[in-house]
Amino acid sequence: MANVRPVEELLKSFNDFMKNIDWKQQPDTLYAPVDYMMKLGGKRIRPLSLLVITEILNGPAEPAYQAAYGLELFHNFTLIHDDIMDNASIRRSKPTVHSGFGLNAAILSGDVMMIESMRFILKAEQLIQKKSLSELFIRTAKEICEGQAYDLAYEKTATVKYSDYLKMIRLKTSVLLGFAMQAASIIASKEALGESLYKAGILIGQAFQLEDDWLDLFSDNPSFGKIKGGDIIQGKKTAIIFELLECLNEHSKIDFIKWYEDEKDPQKRLAEVEAGINQYEIRSKLLDRIKQFQDQALRNLQELELEDHLKLQLTNFVQSVFKREV
Amino acid sequence: MANVRPVEELLKSFNDFMKNIDWKQQPDTLYAPVDYMMKLGGKRIRPLSLLVITEILNGPAEPAYQAAYGLELFHNFTLIHDDIMDNASIRRSKPTVHSGFGLNAAILSGDVMMIESMRFILKAEQLIQKKSLSELFIRTAKEICEGQAYDLAYEKTATVKYSDYLKMIRLKTSVLLGFAMQAASIIASKEALGESLYKAGILIGQAFQLEDDWLDLFSDNPSFGKIKGGDIIQGKKTAIIFELLECLNEHSKIDFIKWYEDEKDPQKRLAEVEAGINQYEIRSKLLDRIKQFQDQALRNLQELELEDHLKLQLTNFVQSVFKREV
Repeated sequence: MANVRPVEELLKSFNDFMKNIDWKQQPDTLYAPVDYMMKLGGKRIRPLSLLVITEILNGPAEPAYQAAYGLELFHNFTLIHDDIMDNASIRRSKPTVHSGFGLNAAILSGDVMMIESMRFILKAEQLIQKKSLSELFIRTAKEICEGQAYDLAYEKTATVKYSDYLKMIRLKTSVLLGFAMQAASIIASKEALGESLYKAGILIGQAFQLEDDWLDLFSDNPSFGKIKGGDIIQGKKTAIIFELLECLNEHSKIDFIKWYEDEKDPQKRLAEVEAGINQYEIRSKLLDRIKQFQDQALRNLQELELEDHLKLQLTNFVQSVFKREV
Repeated sequence: MANVRPVEELLKSFNDFMKNIDWKQQPDTLYAPVDYMMKLGGKRIRPLSLLVITEILNGPAEPAYQAAYGLELFHNFTLIHDDIMDNASIRRSKPTVHSGFGLNAAILSGDVMMIESMRFILKAEQLIQKKSLSELFIRTAKEICEGQAYDLAYEKTATVKYSDYLKMIRLKTSVLLGFAMQAASIIASKEALGESLYKAGILIGQAFQLEDDWLDLFSDNPSFGKIKGGDIIQGKKTAIIFELLECLNEHSKIDFIKWYEDEKDPQKRLAEVEAGINQYEIRSKLLDRIKQFQDQALRNLQELELEDHLKLQLTNFVQSVFKREV
């Protein structure tokens, strides 16, 4: 039986690996923001998924760490550039890179992080003597840019559908988890499992993102620095709004979106949305949808051609890491 | 004897190759700026160098086109992001991407171009079954970011030396020509020539950039849209200024830089710089320096372990493509 380390131990060892990557390079104006961003913390669920699944599949550790770091670096590059585009000044209770270091540094440091992420992916590929990791990575990276572009475009589009929104969050966030899980299968030379793991990663990612939307309004314990209903107050079109739209007829939909976009008083917007949420039981409807994604992901994992005790480890990992207070 | 096509024919065939790369993808908000930028034109000297040298070395055409396109895509990505950082609104007499499509599109479309440039480099690598192309490309890409960071930093630094400036332009622009020339040796399986070709590329790049600085002031026929002495009018520290500083003692240097940075009247700045240029014969001094770089590059090419008729083709190419009105 494969000797799989506990998640906490793997996270600790990944954090140690991260500490050993030296960003104290010259010019400081380029690399100090990289160092700052990579030390800002985070749950590291994407690299962790890659590491844990590689270990469950009995793959080699070194290429897994290299690929995990590459994907975390890439993820953080997207956060820096997204924060510019979203005009966000705070991340993890600290100034965003463009707030702290300026716009130019944020653009350029993000660029070099993207370039360096490829170096780590190629290093992993070299260790396993395979080409497919970088292909999957580049496809994923391209999709993430597309997801962000859809996100920006949808802010200005009144006629966005729920299916558009689900596609956008899949591209913007879920594909990187799909990459993490399929990459593990490549590193462990279990390519036959790759597609199913990728699909499971996408479903888990979708559930995770929809939970974010759900928690914005229904969390009893909002994350530090977050305001209850903050998304609605800011007029964002999250899954909450799309669930509500699903309950309206075509005519009411148009009226609702127009009102939602035009309403000047954020508290009034929140109060009216909350009334609709109660009327149409959106809290449980969105929960059901999240559960559908999760159940489908677990079914995909159950159907893997893998020994039962490994499947159990896999589902235990997914349920422990992606479990939230929903 | 290798059948090397004329430069004009290779340029035409590369332009045809470019036309066949389809950027009419969705979402349009992401890819329309890419399409716009790649059709903005340009001399394509970097991809052309890669193609011509591969052909002189009798290497395969297909991977050369893929790598040449990857590097041209990367180059254009850097132009888009640099134009943001430099607040430039016009490029090639047309609006820059951020002026025409907005800041967010310029950041994100640049990002996807960088990602896609890797796809072409890896495609070339796959065709030649070698790993060294992407390694060289990533190192080069990282250095280009460093060059841009130095460029931005030096704008705010009074104590920049000529050697700092030469290092900055090497990183910002010359290394990509070095990459183009060394990549040709890899694609043609003439790795032994790689280092010398790389060095020659760097020297040609340095000469080319210094010529740009020289032409700003001494061209009898400024490029369309360019004002004679535009760099000095804008208060840029180009090679002209560094040549002038070389002629001053330590004390006068400090006074001059302080005056140059503080002078509010751009025409007065230009007039006084021109007086210094005449006094210290900067026109010919900078020309001599450019010639030194060019001569060293040609000596490097002469020392290549290569048949004489191929050396001749190589030097003819370099002299024809990089020849300017200096």
